[in-house]
Amino acid sequence: MQRTKIKDALAATQAMDEIVIKGWVRTKRDSKGFSFVEINDGSCLQNIQAIVDHTPEIEATLADVGTGAAVGITGSLVESPGKGQKWEVRGTAIELIGTADQETFPLQKKRHTDEFLRGIAHLRPRTNKYGAMFRIRSALAQGVHKFFAERGFFYVHTPILTGSDCEGAGEMFRVTSLEHGSQAPVEQDFFGRPAHLTVSGQLEAEMFSLALGDVYTFGPTFRAENSNTPRHVAEFWMIEPEMAFVDLAGDMDFGEEMIKYLVAHVLDTCASDVELFAKWVDKSLMPTLETVLNREFVRLPYTEAVDILIKSNKKFDYPVEWGIDLQTEHERFLCEEKFKQPLYVYDYPKSIKPFYMRVNDDDRTVAAMDCLVPRIGEIIGGSQREERMDVLLARMKEMDLPEDHYWWYVDSRRFGSVPHSGFGLGFERLLMLVTGVSNIRDAMPFPRTPNNLDF
Amino acid sequence: MQRTKIKDALAATQAMDEIVIKGWVRTKRDSKGFSFVEINDGSCLQNIQAIVDHTPEIEATLADVGTGAAVGITGSLVESPGKGQKWEVRGTAIELIGTADQETFPLQKKRHTDEFLRGIAHLRPRTNKYGAMFRIRSALAQGVHKFFAERGFFYVHTPILTGSDCEGAGEMFRVTSLEHGSQAPVEQDFFGRPAHLTVSGQLEAEMFSLALGDVYTFGPTFRAENSNTPRHVAEFWMIEPEMAFVDLAGDMDFGEEMIKYLVAHVLDTCASDVELFAKWVDKSLMPTLETVLNREFVRLPYTEAVDILIKSNKKFDYPVEWGIDLQTEHERFLCEEKFKQPLYVYDYPKSIKPFYMRVNDDDRTVAAMDCLVPRIGEIIGGSQREERMDVLLARMKEMDLPEDHYWWYVDSRRFGSVPHSGFGLGFERLLMLVTGVSNIRDAMPFPRTPNNLDF
Repeated sequence: MQRTKIKDALAATQAMDEIVIKGWVRTKRDSKGFSFVEINDGSCLQNIQAIVDHTPEIEATLADVGTGAAVGITGSLVESPGKGQKWEVRGTAIELIGTADQETFPLQKKRHTDEFLRGIAHLRPRTNKYGAMFRIRSALAQGVHKFFAERGFFYVHTPILTGSDCEGAGEMFRVTSLEHGSQAPVEQDFFGRPAHLTVSGQLEAEMFSLALGDVYTFGPTFRAENSNTPRHVAEFWMIEPEMAFVDLAGDMDFGEEMIKYLVAHVLDTCASDVELFAKWVDKSLMPTLETVLNREFVRLPYTEAVDILIKSNKKFDYPVEWGIDLQTEHERFLCEEKFKQPLYVYDYPKSIKPFYMRVNDDDRTVAAMDCLVPRIGEIIGGSQREERMDVLLARMKEMDLPEDHYWWYVDSRRFGSVPHSGFGLGFERLLMLVTGVSNIRDAMPFPRTPNNLDF
Repeated sequence: MQRTKIKDALAATQAMDEIVIKGWVRTKRDSKGFSFVEINDGSCLQNIQAIVDHTPEIEATLADVGTGAAVGITGSLVESPGKGQKWEVRGTAIELIGTADQETFPLQKKRHTDEFLRGIAHLRPRTNKYGAMFRIRSALAQGVHKFFAERGFFYVHTPILTGSDCEGAGEMFRVTSLEHGSQAPVEQDFFGRPAHLTVSGQLEAEMFSLALGDVYTFGPTFRAENSNTPRHVAEFWMIEPEMAFVDLAGDMDFGEEMIKYLVAHVLDTCASDVELFAKWVDKSLMPTLETVLNREFVRLPYTEAVDILIKSNKKFDYPVEWGIDLQTEHERFLCEEKFKQPLYVYDYPKSIKPFYMRVNDDDRTVAAMDCLVPRIGEIIGGSQREERMDVLLARMKEMDLPEDHYWWYVDSRRFGSVPHSGFGLGFERLLMLVTGVSNIRDAMPFPRTPNNLDF
């Protein structure tokens, strides 16, 4: 008989004479003549309770059933007299599918630290918290595709292996088919020249935007930064929309629409999973999400932002003056203290931004924007792209970027160039926003950090 | 005024007094007093025709409008008297957004070879064929997520950077933060030990399946194989479902359901794009897809497959005997000549398969399956996984795999192990199936092959 997922069983509209539940035992309590077994199969946060009457055979099986064991229970689905659950299973047979030794099984019924659970990342999705986290992560990712599909955006798989460095900066991983320490010339390497892991699919996505109109990427990106902080990992996922015939204002509109859609999507599809985080991880989670959903995002020119920071008379570690790149402390002050809601800062100084951002008429700022949200800081970074070939070439020269390396990028401005804009949204940051967790390592299945490549 | 996408304009249910169309000029024909301009914006295969009456100003602008230029046309949407299109634009104003020099623009109105277009991969999505290809690719990818979301599967981002080699074979790219030729010990590298690009997310996906039940990955995978064939690239996308409490038969059921769903999804959402391929690329495309949609996939034990091949008396380059791995020529004979439809071959010899496949009772085969489709050959490779810890450990020992390296994988069999199955589906192969293109390089945005890392 086909098993019924616990999520479906709990959502049943009527009792069922026959049902098979399979999953992992969260707790077992023996009583005189019967046992309670709480089972979770990962389909949802909730367990289903099974009450199994003892027969000699069943008692023998139950003796080996402990927390973490996999079982199958056959029986009927009946209304539960207990509170907090509508349905329970009256079990007539129990199968022990996979045992779990109670001495060594690490997930006994008690709270474990996040740090401990990181060490058993292969087992932590079996806990309530990480089961919820990864169901939310999945819903958020599927919601991303749904959002774009509904708006006629095309999904583009930009390459992971790249010969270029999008930002003209950033530490990149090198990729090679040569052995460690090999002195062979780079011409003998797989690609015949240096290859790296991408830090952004933007430049390639632009090529597709200039052909298909509205496109997006959603894939892994990499940074070889040797930072051991709760906000840095070597591998993470990024969403990068790119839109033809859209300017910076349209770019900001779209980013706001997207964040609101995704927050609403998660609240819609993962209510009880999010509730867990609101209850146990971040008491202010729901008010924060309400603010994101209901407030129109503030839009603040960089120059005004700098004024506000200077006039605040607040003591920052990094002193503020026009021309600096805003630091996390500045962003958090603006977002959490001054405005207490999401905001965009836009029109940044040209001197601190990459070559592809569109130069404004003042010639000292570019059409760049960052979106700041409470607790996270920057969640989106984007810009209108420089579509004027002469301006682009002048910027590249100014910044010492070799034109022949970017010939194809420049080419796109040579033929039918149009105004276009886009941004990058760090997927894990969005997940941290909707769950309230403060360490990015706890928002990904198997985080990669310096000296950590387990699993 | 907001632009209207051409796809939406062509699907209009009534005329519109005001409309703005923006896109790239495919052709322009001047007539006495007016000009025809065919515009494409990538939202669909079809162009929209604009008829622009001449004024001195408009004529001056039109003089600089050539194939490939970007324009904006303002006017009204009216019924088209011409055939083949329901609507056209009567333009009252034209804006030249981006010019295209007619001497150098490489996409003039003639057919270009696929090879030529590979050299300008940044521009080829502006052609009919590659615009269609990448819209289909997007629909197929979005369809994958839709398929899994509808079935309650959770999307897992398994890591790209890995310390393990899933198949115990296959040439892998090495990833490092050390400089080329550096003699520093590997302990000084970013992860303190050798790191590679993943060839499969399966082992990690299994961990999530044993917690959340039904999961899947969909991400890039890598092979450092130095093969210059129409079927090999260094970077490609793979879909890997993994299902708890499912055996090999259920695995095959699910693969068949998935392929049929995705083929139907593309026919549904990309009818005219697929038509282009059926007309110009592969005349047998539609019959092939009909076969895939309508036939129940044959299921053939490996041992019977070998019998059939031997009895066929066909001369193969690789002679057939029990124990060999089937070659493409064998697979194509079975699929295209013998059965003339999709089929599964299953229960392969243990000796040619990886350690994680479940050993059958005969102890000489494993519960492995390959799905073969016409023209492509193997499109799915999967198996029921070995859930019995003692058997798994014995297999690992037999194959000299270090247990301490796979401690976490073995751990999953130690605690609540359950029967589970999964497979890998090469996304580009599926795209080749639904478009009929025969070179994998033409099914991806920017293909990576030996000595080729452009764009």
